[in-house]
Amino acid sequence: MDIKSKIDIFEGFPKEGISFKDINSLIRDPEAFKFVIDEFHKIAKALDVNLVCIPEARGYIFGTPLAYLLNVGLVPVRKPGKLPGEVVAEEYDLEYGTNTVEIQKSAIKPGDRVVIIDDLLATGGTMKAAIDLVEKLGGEVCGALFLIELTELKGRENLKDYFVSSLVQYPV
Amino acid sequence: MDIKSKIDIFEGFPKEGISFKDINSLIRDPEAFKFVIDEFHKIAKALDVNLVCIPEARGYIFGTPLAYLLNVGLVPVRKPGKLPGEVVAEEYDLEYGTNTVEIQKSAIKPGDRVVIIDDLLATGGTMKAAIDLVEKLGGEVCGALFLIELTELKGRENLKDYFVSSLVQYPV
Repeated sequence: MDIKSKIDIFEGFPKEGISFKDINSLIRDPEAFKFVIDEFHKIAKALDVNLVCIPEARGYIFGTPLAYLLNVGLVPVRKPGKLPGEVVAEEYDLEYGTNTVEIQKSAIKPGDRVVIIDDLLATGGTMKAAIDLVEKLGGEVCGALFLIELTELKGRENLKDYFVSSLVQYPV
Repeated sequence: MDIKSKIDIFEGFPKEGISFKDINSLIRDPEAFKFVIDEFHKIAKALDVNLVCIPEARGYIFGTPLAYLLNVGLVPVRKPGKLPGEVVAEEYDLEYGTNTVEIQKSAIKPGDRVVIIDDLLATGGTMKAAIDLVEKLGGEVCGALFLIELTELKGRENLKDYFVSSLVQYPV
């Protein structure tokens, strides 16, 4: 399937200079949505994981059917203040300012094998923060999966110690 | 399965007086997660829908595997500013202040049959706003599904014209 033909592009959203890849047009199409999830399933099966980690919010869309198909558990990575109980946090740099993400301490046990999945690989900052959270709790990150990769932003360099796979690529 | 035994309770989160039902303990458990999704699938199959609508963010967790199993499309309801293209918006009251949610105009066509799914039915404000968005675009809301219902908050009264189903109930 030509996945790109299912992804609408909005120039100048959310701000000037950004060419926004809109996954909503893809997930609204049942065949395209199923195709993408089945592709992720093929890749993730080989990684022999026992957890799927999902950064809020668009990571949820691809990670939850994947966890269902793999018959493994789900671990959300969320913005601060959303998760009850003890958490670990990781701050990372954005173009302007910083961002923080959290994970529950009870979510990962030492030796857990984890795949992390998100919609978009840009500079890799969010994914690297998620990886650091999983590793802080003793989990092993077996792969980082993305629907879309913006190759000219070189996010793979930020993730060079990990298995990275994306289903479609755009320059920016 | 005793679903309640899989849901951790945090008293006083996110603020005093709230008894927080934590779905993270449930979705981390592969058998409990699969059981819940399969229960939603049984209910939703009978509704003969062609779209699953998912309020951000925890609605995504239950709605995306459901859409995969039903082989239908997904329509997110998001916070303002997140969705590109033309949107319709709906404002609704919270305990203090108001909240606004949006949906893409291109997401729903007149005659679409839609089930909306979220983690928690409290007063029903978010669900009612999602229903209004779907109906503004000509869609038919065939059901509102929840994992958890807080029965003493009487959210069902807010949704009395619709088929409502929840998998587990707590007083508050």
